[in-house]
Parts: sequence; C-alpha cells; structure tokens
Amino acid sequence: MHEIDEREILKVLGELKAKRVLIQTPEGLKHEAQFLADFLEENGIEAIISGDINYGACDPADREAKALGCDALIHLGHSYMKLNLEVPTLFVPAFAKVDVLPALEKNLDEIKKLGRKIALVTTAQHIHQLERAREFLENGGFEVLVGDGDGRVSWRGQVIGCNFTAAKVDADGVLFIGAGYFHPVGVALAVRKPTLAVNPYSRDAIWMNEEAEWIIRKRWAQIAKAYDVEKFGVVVSTKKGQLRLGEARRIIKLLREHGKYARLIAMNHISYPALEGFDFDAYVVVACPRVPIDDVENWRKPVLTPPEVELLLGLREDYEFDEIFGGKRDKNEPFGIALHGVRG
Amino acid sequence: MHEIDEREILKVLGELKAKRVLIQTPEGLKHEAQFLADFLEENGIEAIISGDINYGACDPADREAKALGCDALIHLGHSYMKLNLEVPTLFVPAFAKVDVLPALEKNLDEIKKLGRKIALVTTAQHIHQLERAREFLENGGFEVLVGDGDGRVSWRGQVIGCNFTAAKVDADGVLFIGAGYFHPVGVALAVRKPTLAVNPYSRDAIWMNEEAEWIIRKRWAQIAKAYDVEKFGVVVSTKKGQLRLGEARRIIKLLREHGKYARLIAMNHISYPALEGFDFDAYVVVACPRVPIDDVENWRKPVLTPPEVELLLGLREDYEFDEIFGGKRDKNEPFGIALHGVRG
Repeated sequence: MHEIDEREILKVLGELKAKRVLIQTPEGLKHEAQFLADFLEENGIEAIISGDINYGACDPADREAKALGCDALIHLGHSYMKLNLEVPTLFVPAFAKVDVLPALEKNLDEIKKLGRKIALVTTAQHIHQLERAREFLENGGFEVLVGDGDGRVSWRGQVIGCNFTAAKVDADGVLFIGAGYFHPVGVALAVRKPTLAVNPYSRDAIWMNEEAEWIIRKRWAQIAKAYDVEKFGVVVSTKKGQLRLGEARRIIKLLREHGKYARLIAMNHISYPALEGFDFDAYVVVACPRVPIDDVENWRKPVLTPPEVELLLGLREDYEFDEIFGGKRDKNEPFGIALHGVRG
Repeated sequence: MHEIDEREILKVLGELKAKRVLIQTPEGLKHEAQFLADFLEENGIEAIISGDINYGACDPADREAKALGCDALIHLGHSYMKLNLEVPTLFVPAFAKVDVLPALEKNLDEIKKLGRKIALVTTAQHIHQLERAREFLENGGFEVLVGDGDGRVSWRGQVIGCNFTAAKVDADGVLFIGAGYFHPVGVALAVRKPTLAVNPYSRDAIWMNEEAEWIIRKRWAQIAKAYDVEKFGVVVSTKKGQLRLGEARRIIKLLREHGKYARLIAMNHISYPALEGFDFDAYVVVACPRVPIDDVENWRKPVLTPPEVELLLGLREDYEFDEIFGGKRDKNEPFGIALHGVRG
C-alpha cells in the first residue's frame, strides 16, 4: 500500500556518514520499519528500531537517538514538523499508491453539494496527488482553493490532526481526500463549513459535519461537568511538538484568577490511568488537542482543551477547536525524504 | 505512613537558587508530591509534577526537567542511583514510620529457622532502622551479616528490585524486612538461600523460596517455548538506569552466532502491546530484569532475560537471575535528602 524508498534512505545516510541509526515508525509501518532495519544492516549501518508508539512528527525520537549514540534518526510515515532536533533526522513520508481520481469521479455529484468554490485538502499520504486532483476538479467546473497552511505542516493543502490552517480559505466548503475519520472530522471541527471526505481506497464519500456537531455537544457536556470543579490538573506533554508551556501557564493563571486551584503536570504519553491517584477533579490537556476529543471515553474525570476552559470561565462564547499553529512556512518540503536537524 | 521533609527540600532548593522544579513520584506518594508542589509554590518556587509513572531511581526525569526549563529535579520515594544526571537532583527517600522491632520479636521462632548466621537486608523505606534491627537480633543470639552491596544501591544492607548484592554474604539464610513480595522474592531468586520476609506493618513472616522456585519453573517454561523461535526482538529501555546497550549487543551477537535473527529495539516503558505488529516470535528484555518475570502474563510471545538466552543456547546450565550490577560504592548516602548532579 505504501512505499518506503530504502535505497534513497541509504544514500542520505551515506552522505551523513551515519554508522548507527534509530528508526521510528507509526503503528501501520512496523513491518516496513523492520525491513528497513534489515536492509540497512546488510549495508553496514547498525539499525535500532524504536518500540515506542508514535503518532506524529510532533514526537520525534531525536533525544532517544542521541541517548542511544545514533548518528541519525529515521522518522517514518510523517512529514517534517519545525522543531529543534538534536540529531540529523530523515522524515520519510509514506505516500500511498492508490489513485485518488476514481474516487473523485465516482462522487462528483456529492462534491457538487459543497458549492462551486471548494477548499481542497489532504494528508501527507496523498499530498503528491493534490495537483492532479485539483486539475481534475477544475476541469469539472469547480473553483479549487488550496490553502497555504502555516509552518506546522510541510506542504500547501496538507492537514494534520492539530492543524487545519490549509483548509481555512474563502470557500463554500471543504473537500478532504483520504481515509478514516480522524483528519476530516478535525477539518469540520476547525473550519465549521460543509466538509466532505472522499476515501480513495473505498471510494466512499462521507459528510463530516454531523459527526463534528455531535462531538461539540459532547464537549459542552464535558464543560458542564467541570462547572463546579475546584481543582484542575493542567497537563502538558514533554513530546517536543506538544510542549505548550506558555499556553499551559496562561490557562493556570486564568483558572487561579477565577478562584480555582490549578497545578501543572508534565508527562510524555498523556492517558488518564497514569493520573489516577492525584487529587484533581478535572484536567486540562494543553498538548495534543485530540487527546480530550478522541480519548475522552477513557477519562473518569472531565477533560478539557484550553479554549474550553475559556468557555467554562465565561471568557468566550463560541466553541472553538484547540488548534496548534506554526509560524510561516518558507517553502514546501520535497515529495520524498526531508532531512533536518543537521548542524553547521 | 511516610514523611517527606518539605522544609529541608525548600532549604536545599534555596541553596541551589532554584526557581522552577520538576517533582517525580512513585504511585504511592502522589498526594505527598502534590502537597509538596503546593508548599513550594507558596514559597515562590514554580513546581511542576511529573505525571509519568515512575518505578525507580533507574528512571530519573532529569532530561524532562531540562526540557521543561527546571533548575532541579525532586525524585521522591527512591534512593540515589549512580547515573549521569543533567540537572541537580534531590533524591528524597520516604522513610516509613513503622517500628520494625515488634514484627521481628513476634517472629523470632521463624527467624531461627534461617540458622544462626543470617544476612539482614531491607529496602530504602526501612533502611534507617537496619542498625536497630541488627542489634535486636544480635541480642537474640544471631550472628547478623549486613552486606555492603555494590554501587547501584545507596546503603549497606539495601536491596532494590534489580540488585541483591547486599544479601550475598556468607550466611545460612536471608532475613528481609519490608512489605510486599516484589523485593523478597527477588532476594530468593538472586541468592537461592532460605529467605524469610518479615513485614513490619502486618507483622507477618513469609518464606519466599517456594514462590521463587515456582517462578523459576515458569521461567524454564518460557525458555522451552522459545526453543524453536527464529526471530528475536532484543529490547533495551531508554530509561537511564536501564539502558544496557553493551549487554544487548552481546545477546544479539550470541543469537546471530547461533543462526537466529535478532534485532535491537529501544523503548521507554517496555510493555507487550507496543510491540504487537513487529515480526518477532520472542523477545529478550535487556532492561529491568523484573519485566520478563513480573509482567510475563501480559506477553503473548515468550519473553526472556539475558541469562535465560544463554540457557536457551546451551551456554549455561544453572538458572541465574538477571541482576544489574553497579561499580563500587564510596560511602553510604545520608538518611535524608541526597543531592546529586550538581555541576562544577
């Protein structure tokens, strides 16, 4: 389904004169990671596989690579995110081989319901086909807007779970190309416009707005449960791309100004069971915004995002998704290996 | 039950001119950690609590403290372990208030079954009462040997889950003072002499050797299950005190010399679910030796320690516990806060 170009990786590692590397992989590429490790060792490079579960480029294992004496980190399956990396890091996105056009063709009537002026977004898996998709849609009579997105993403038109800036353009609705609910429901939550997800594998098209509205109702229920809470744990993650210390301090200050007890907690992987035993009655996650939204069923105490705290305290009226913004992006990354973190 | 001396901690932090600290705590001291954070903030020091589950001094959150901009780390509940620390770290053992003598007195007849010459060991919780216990037993006619232990522990006579060197003296049997099975069963596994655990809270005395023999039988069953395995994942932990890279390489070399496929995996918290999806048929944990022993029920593939691999390959005949040894210890730590990792 995906293709990892092992020879290209070997070439870059050769240029880096790397003797030992750490390979980091998302769940879906574990076999590819192991094949890559075998291939690199056959070619004289010691390869260690990271067994820690990885959900995104916000969590590069560069500190671990350094501790293991590795000359480089290979981060599979996610595109580059601007972070201060401690070892040279190869971001190796996994581009899907599936053609996106048949699914668009099949769902043209549904896509038309978005309006004539549509925003087009996708994930790293299909980003290399975005221009083809745009041309196809323009030939079908649509005005297609591909948003620049900010510096947290790698390419124009790309969305990730915490950043939908590429979808925020002056369009009637948003067309998302890709599989699963995770990304397109994020689009609908962050953009609040008609959002259609077209899946290039199944060729299904699914409207995301009802799902998003249902999530927002559940979020209001969490906020309501936290109304009488006195003691808040405000949680940041030590993952590099989720360490939102300034925002956490702002939330603690707001809570304390409103007479609440608030205490800062830092942890790597944020999950409720590890927090059992502390004396807090609700939590605010100032890390990955998807934790309170997608993992809420596993929390036995109310769990909020920063904007939801503002709603709770009456400092805001409209529901807002907790997006993590980046700075300005200078240029698109290559459609291949992106090398970052090289010093000097 | 335990006492954390908050004023003493504040004093040391004052000497360090610390403005921001990270507090790390084992499960059982979460409330104390939170009280300490409140106390420090009342005294002008920003306190962040680590929400990551911590099982020992082998896993100091000094890297995390540094990433959070903290001037110091407070590590609650465990005694100092020699490691290269990146920020000044206060090791604050939690000494139990319970008197150990009544439990010894109640179980004198049982203790006599150990023989006349006994090794006396305990954990950090009761180490401050070890001399009292020794005197009591000597007055009762025993010859009491308190082993030095090596540099992985803080005091003479102290045992931790991976190091029982203090129990390895020329005695007839070992008397362990403390609660729970975890430490005394480790004594019995590592020393293979009659081992009696006297619990100062319940005042019960429990013989540990049957439990240890039962564990060893289960370990042989794991080894047997791994006999036909071709593909081994060899797992190290990135926790500072568990990063046994040299030992892992030795095991990989041994496995490959015997025609097996072996690949190095590095992860923080070692658990089976994170490893599902890799193509290995058995694992070797070269990290905390207690993971394969105490967590084996949660593994769906055979999981071995390094000496168990030697048994598997026919390089060793007798079962041996996978102990982690330290160098020589210069002196005992104080019975209170131990400050380490201060530069210059």
